Amino acid sequence: MTKLKWGMIGGGDGSQIGPAHRLGAQADGLFEFAAGALDHRPVEGRAYAQRLGIAEDRAYGDWREMLEGERDRADRIDLVTVATPNSTHFEITKAFLEAGFNVLCEKPMTLTVEEGEEIVRVAEASGKICAVNYCYSAYPMVRQARAMVRNGEIGKVRLVVTNFSHGHHGDATDADNPRVRWRYDPAMAGVSGQFADCGIHALHMASFICDDAVDRLSADFASTIPSRELEDDAMVNFRMTGGTVGRLWTSSVAIGRQHGFDIQVFGETGGLRWASEQPNQLISTPVGGRTQIIEKGEAGLHEEARRLSRVAIAHPEGFPLAVANIYCDLADAIRGETRDGLPGAADGVRSMAAVHAAVDSARQHGAWVDARPPMFR
Amino acid sequence: MTKLKWGMIGGGDGSQIGPAHRLGAQADGLFEFAAGALDHRPVEGRAYAQRLGIAEDRAYGDWREMLEGERDRADRIDLVTVATPNSTHFEITKAFLEAGFNVLCEKPMTLTVEEGEEIVRVAEASGKICAVNYCYSAYPMVRQARAMVRNGEIGKVRLVVTNFSHGHHGDATDADNPRVRWRYDPAMAGVSGQFADCGIHALHMASFICDDAVDRLSADFASTIPSRELEDDAMVNFRMTGGTVGRLWTSSVAIGRQHGFDIQVFGETGGLRWASEQPNQLISTPVGGRTQIIEKGEAGLHEEARRLSRVAIAHPEGFPLAVANIYCDLADAIRGETRDGLPGAADGVRSMAAVHAAVDSARQHGAWVDARPPMFR
Amino acid sequence: MTKLKWGMIGGGDGSQIGPAHRLGAQADGLFEFAAGALDHRPVEGRAYAQRLGIAEDRAYGDWREMLEGERDRADRIDLVTVATPNSTHFEITKAFLEAGFNVLCEKPMTLTVEEGEEIVRVAEASGKICAVNYCYSAYPMVRQARAMVRNGEIGKVRLVVTNFSHGHHGDATDADNPRVRWRYDPAMAGVSGQFADCGIHALHMASFICDDAVDRLSADFASTIPSRELEDDAMVNFRMTGGTVGRLWTSSVAIGRQHGFDIQVFGETGGLRWASEQPNQLISTPVGGRTQIIEKGEAGLHEEARRLSRVAIAHPEGFPLAVANIYCDLADAIRGETRDGLPGAADGVRSMAAVHAAVDSARQHGAWVDARPPMFR
Amino acid sequence: MTKLKWGMIGGGDGSQIGPAHRLGAQADGLFEFAAGALDHRPVEGRAYAQRLGIAEDRAYGDWREMLEGERDRADRIDLVTVATPNSTHFEITKAFLEAGFNVLCEKPMTLTVEEGEEIVRVAEASGKICAVNYCYSAYPMVRQARAMVRNGEIGKVRLVVTNFSHGHHGDATDADNPRVRWRYDPAMAGVSGQFADCGIHALHMASFICDDAVDRLSADFASTIPSRELEDDAMVNFRMTGGTVGRLWTSSVAIGRQHGFDIQVFGETGGLRWASEQPNQLISTPVGGRTQIIEKGEAGLHEEARRLSRVAIAHPEGFPLAVANIYCDLADAIRGETRDGLPGAADGVRSMAAVHAAVDSARQHGAWVDARPPMFR
Repeated sequence: MTKLKWGMIGGGDGSQIGPAHRLGAQADGLFEFAAGALDHRPVEGRAYAQRLGIAEDRAYGDWREMLEGERDRADRIDLVTVATPNSTHFEITKAFLEAGFNVLCEKPMTLTVEEGEEIVRVAEASGKICAVNYCYSAYPMVRQARAMVRNGEIGKVRLVVTNFSHGHHGDATDADNPRVRWRYDPAMAGVSGQFADCGIHALHMASFICDDAVDRLSADFASTIPSRELEDDAMVNFRMTGGTVGRLWTSSVAIGRQHGFDIQVFGETGGLRWASEQPNQLISTPVGGRTQIIEKGEAGLHEEARRLSRVAIAHPEGFPLAVANIYCDLADAIRGETRDGLPGAADGVRSMAAVHAAVDSARQHGAWVDARPPMFR
Repeated sequence: MTKLKWGMIGGGDGSQIGPAHRLGAQADGLFEFAAGALDHRPVEGRAYAQRLGIAEDRAYGDWREMLEGERDRADRIDLVTVATPNSTHFEITKAFLEAGFNVLCEKPMTLTVEEGEEIVRVAEASGKICAVNYCYSAYPMVRQARAMVRNGEIGKVRLVVTNFSHGHHGDATDADNPRVRWRYDPAMAGVSGQFADCGIHALHMASFICDDAVDRLSADFASTIPSRELEDDAMVNFRMTGGTVGRLWTSSVAIGRQHGFDIQVFGETGGLRWASEQPNQLISTPVGGRTQIIEKGEAGLHEEARRLSRVAIAHPEGFPLAVANIYCDLADAIRGETRDGLPGAADGVRSMAAVHAAVDSARQHGAWVDARPPMFR
Repeated sequence: MTKLKWGMIGGGDGSQIGPAHRLGAQADGLFEFAAGALDHRPVEGRAYAQRLGIAEDRAYGDWREMLEGERDRADRIDLVTVATPNSTHFEITKAFLEAGFNVLCEKPMTLTVEEGEEIVRVAEASGKICAVNYCYSAYPMVRQARAMVRNGEIGKVRLVVTNFSHGHHGDATDADNPRVRWRYDPAMAGVSGQFADCGIHALHMASFICDDAVDRLSADFASTIPSRELEDDAMVNFRMTGGTVGRLWTSSVAIGRQHGFDIQVFGETGGLRWASEQPNQLISTPVGGRTQIIEKGEAGLHEEARRLSRVAIAHPEGFPLAVANIYCDLADAIRGETRDGLPGAADGVRSMAAVHAAVDSARQHGAWVDARPPMFR
Repeated sequence: MTKLKWGMIGGGDGSQIGPAHRLGAQADGLFEFAAGALDHRPVEGRAYAQRLGIAEDRAYGDWREMLEGERDRADRIDLVTVATPNSTHFEITKAFLEAGFNVLCEKPMTLTVEEGEEIVRVAEASGKICAVNYCYSAYPMVRQARAMVRNGEIGKVRLVVTNFSHGHHGDATDADNPRVRWRYDPAMAGVSGQFADCGIHALHMASFICDDAVDRLSADFASTIPSRELEDDAMVNFRMTGGTVGRLWTSSVAIGRQHGFDIQVFGETGGLRWASEQPNQLISTPVGGRTQIIEKGEAGLHEEARRLSRVAIAHPEGFPLAVANIYCDLADAIRGETRDGLPGAADGVRSMAAVHAAVDSARQHGAWVDARPPMFR
């Protein structure tokens, strides 16, 4: 099987996200890293791309140069990953889709709901894949959870409870640290801090596993470190289209929680629990029965979970391979297989609508507001 | 040290609560079970009391008879426990306080805020102890958490997050089971279901550890099993007098959670975590540091935790001895020592005010409402 | 039901074991603390007994005085607990059995195998109960494990692996601390240190759950703190009569383990796991199936587990109530019910034979030796 | 940085080990998969190699053809991985070393001690790297543990306790399954079953973290499923050169354990604990202090741990990236950096000597035997 050709925009020397995507794309030998515009500084970006093994003529100085360079090549890239600062996602994603490229965009896909809706329309018109990197949804046992819900194994879902809380921004003496500060500064982060950063992963996860969309919500935001303009702690209650009740807590001041992203789904006939720090197990309890541990790699998993696992039962597979699973799905989708677990532009715009809805609700002291993008109302 | 004399109202043959109180009162040899009106059926109550070793003349047919019988005895009981149906707590507690008895009342202390305020006034006027059985607060490591907070070991508290969720009412086919149904029937349970049953334990715990009172709240109630009139799942956001942000989730349909009562407290310089299913550890993380496990019985605990532990480190002590700790505190308090960890009438009325506030807020779609009893505004 | 009358020898003011037995005997209201010789100093012992509420004429100065005092009383004690220094267990237990008292002896029942065999014979001749306080075996979920094994739920047992390791003697600078030092001094502790102290609990547990006896063993002893004459770490491999393979590790220098007593039992059709620091769960895995959590208090437990649980599912019951369960069994047995889970003199002598066998084997560099008392060969 | 060129022998279509190595070599973009002899069937092997993107002229039919083909190329491979059946490791590894290639050999490196010693000598003479894939030692937190021990952070090591137990061969009805049966058949597996398969990983881990070698040992082997000629359960006691006491249990019939590989190291001033199913934490307890959780990715880790972590704290990295870490070390070592954590031929021959020693000891009923290869005595 010939490798697909892959390019990246952003992810330059010293970034965290660049290595994560390179590992994700290359781990399974599905993609060849063929082109890149890796830095906002053209000279550095070209040099770094070449150090990573990209040919000189495909080591670009910026994304526009890359778009022009790749557009008409016979061996043009099959997929471009957009891993630039948030404010640029929209225009780059849009431009590449319009030029007929498949795109994997980092979250958030856009900053506004209007931009998000435009991406949905452009992607649809282009016939190309527009994926958004909600990579937690690609853990095998998250896929197992979704398959179980869809298969009716816990009955109609009544309640979903999810948290994404950490304590890494809990030190007020660190408030001037620019890597922390920008998250709480509207000029740089937009309308929301912690909810837009982490909360939307949890909200996406709830929708993903329940296979349902968030309909309306009520939010309580707090800046527990008073110098912060944006929230560092948020609680969002929601209802899904099918009636499921939702509860989402997200915090960056939860000292002692490291990467406290977990989800519990409760249905008529059973409950499920999954946590990102122990991602290879899914905890399942049938109503009136005993709690069971479902292991990645065990016999009898749903195909959706089975196909995204590489090593034997109880050999843990972690975060980088969840990212790699997104690339596995993308490779399959590019080759024409249906991969409906792949998060797409609709997920991106729904997240953005939820962020704006939560901000509105919090400003109105928890009033319930519509959380849907206008195009999906 | 002579044993104190103790009596109980309610807790008859077959009840769960009777054995728990008898064990709690007798485990440490502090109380002698001297009198009882154990059943609403006089004959059965008298017989059962005698089977439990109570003298015939103190095996009473009902609480009024017991009040009359004990009132003028030279060796009258030092403490009476009220473990009757909720609707009777108020009048029995009031009557015994007015007659000069110390009382331990099961929760909820009363059904209305007005009654609660009256108990506070009666208790104050009587000079007697009126305790309420928020027994989880008597676990040694909960006392340790409270002592650490009061001692400034985690700095000013920013955020408290607590859950009390189980799945034992998650089976809709069990909806006609009378032991389940009454909780969701306003005629029997009052204005609130799960929040009044379990949520107020969590709310009391938050106040207890943070050493602060709930000021205002916003609630979202759901009846996830549609036939239920009262809520089986609730989320309550709150603010404490000192500004602490609070989040409380309680559910009875969380299938797979058995006794999911836990609390996390996050301050300026550290975080704490405690869970009722593993009550002998307190998890502590200093800001920027490593998570540590504090063990019941380890050297250097605060006196409040040390004095309520009976056996060596890592020998677990469970729920029945948390109840016994309430009785230890009561014995000390009856003998004149200050035991400020003992939950009292003020805690009882605050809980009732919070229940009514949450019901009001939920009816107003999450509007923020005052959660304080009028007497404490 | 009239309370039974109970006496204790040893367990004086300041001891750890005294309160544990008083709580165990009194928690469920089954025994009245009627007599005691609590201290090797007669004056102190008599005074302390009276402070604990014992009548003056039954507050004895030593065990011989108590034997004489109780022997001919009409209301003599129904049970005596022997909680004196190890070297005195034999003569006291023997004397009380011969005088027709039921006895609960602390472990080790004797220091030599010969003495142990004599106790077995005396107990048999007396027709009285001689129990030994292997209290861990009285946890409800240990009883559940034994019942499952006896019921064939994991098939024939192939393998049992048990540990009892802690790190509380791991500080070499503490070597002169008399509370630590005596354990490793043959003049005070006898032939074995850590194995005789903790290991025999694990060995008893293996026999108890597997319902089988240790037949032969091979031991490796180490004094990891060189100043210690007796072992502070031991590994014992064994075989049971039915062919089960056994592995037992015990250590007092395992820094970081607090009370690391756990057991795993593996049969033809399933495996079980239990740990003393989380005693309310039993982990069960059917061959080829998923691991399940069995909770104390859940529906459908074996009667042996059900009857020793006091509070609802997931309300933890800890070590003191495991001791109380021994007293529950004793009260039943005194009243004539068969309680075959109660550890007795045969268990006591088997433990002692295993200790001496392990010492012999370790001296012979791991040679396999017979671990049975001569009377059971 | 140009990618290094890498080849593999074995790991054909359908094997588990092939994808693990390909992922390990390619995950970080350090190696280009340039050559392969992937199958013992030449036609299938060549075809599969080409499907994986290897050029036609480097898709070899067998290892001898590959040796000839690569030997004189200017762009010859920098590293060859030997992932063939165990019995062929010796001759292939030897041949490639003699031809001046760097080799990564799967475990066991050889079947006999003599062969192992020859590999050590050949590797030394060649000046090339001969690594053995003890990949668990490349987990970041295992490296942290080793660095802590070497840095004296737990004092002199007294005791190491390690287990590698699973239950995947616990079903006797599965005894005819060829994927299980060969492990216990001396004709196919050699002198040892479970100990040679899993136990040597644990033994290597003990040596690795303690930075010490196994000196002598005593073993107890059991075939708990009677039809098995080789052991499916083993206990090995050992002593290290520096005096450390060792305990190692390994089993394949431990139903309910999935991948129960863990290690505890106890020194004079602290204890460490690590488990392969939760590999991103290292549990550390200073003597007399509280247990702490050290997280992969936290600030202040030793460089050995820091450099092998790719993603932020509490983002798990699993087994496949531990294999990748071996390749990271190899890439560095090929480029001339000292990577003393890389397991080598000496580790390979020590393991083999330990296997044979354990077999000898078990046959002699646990006699203590020398566990060192003659060349290291």
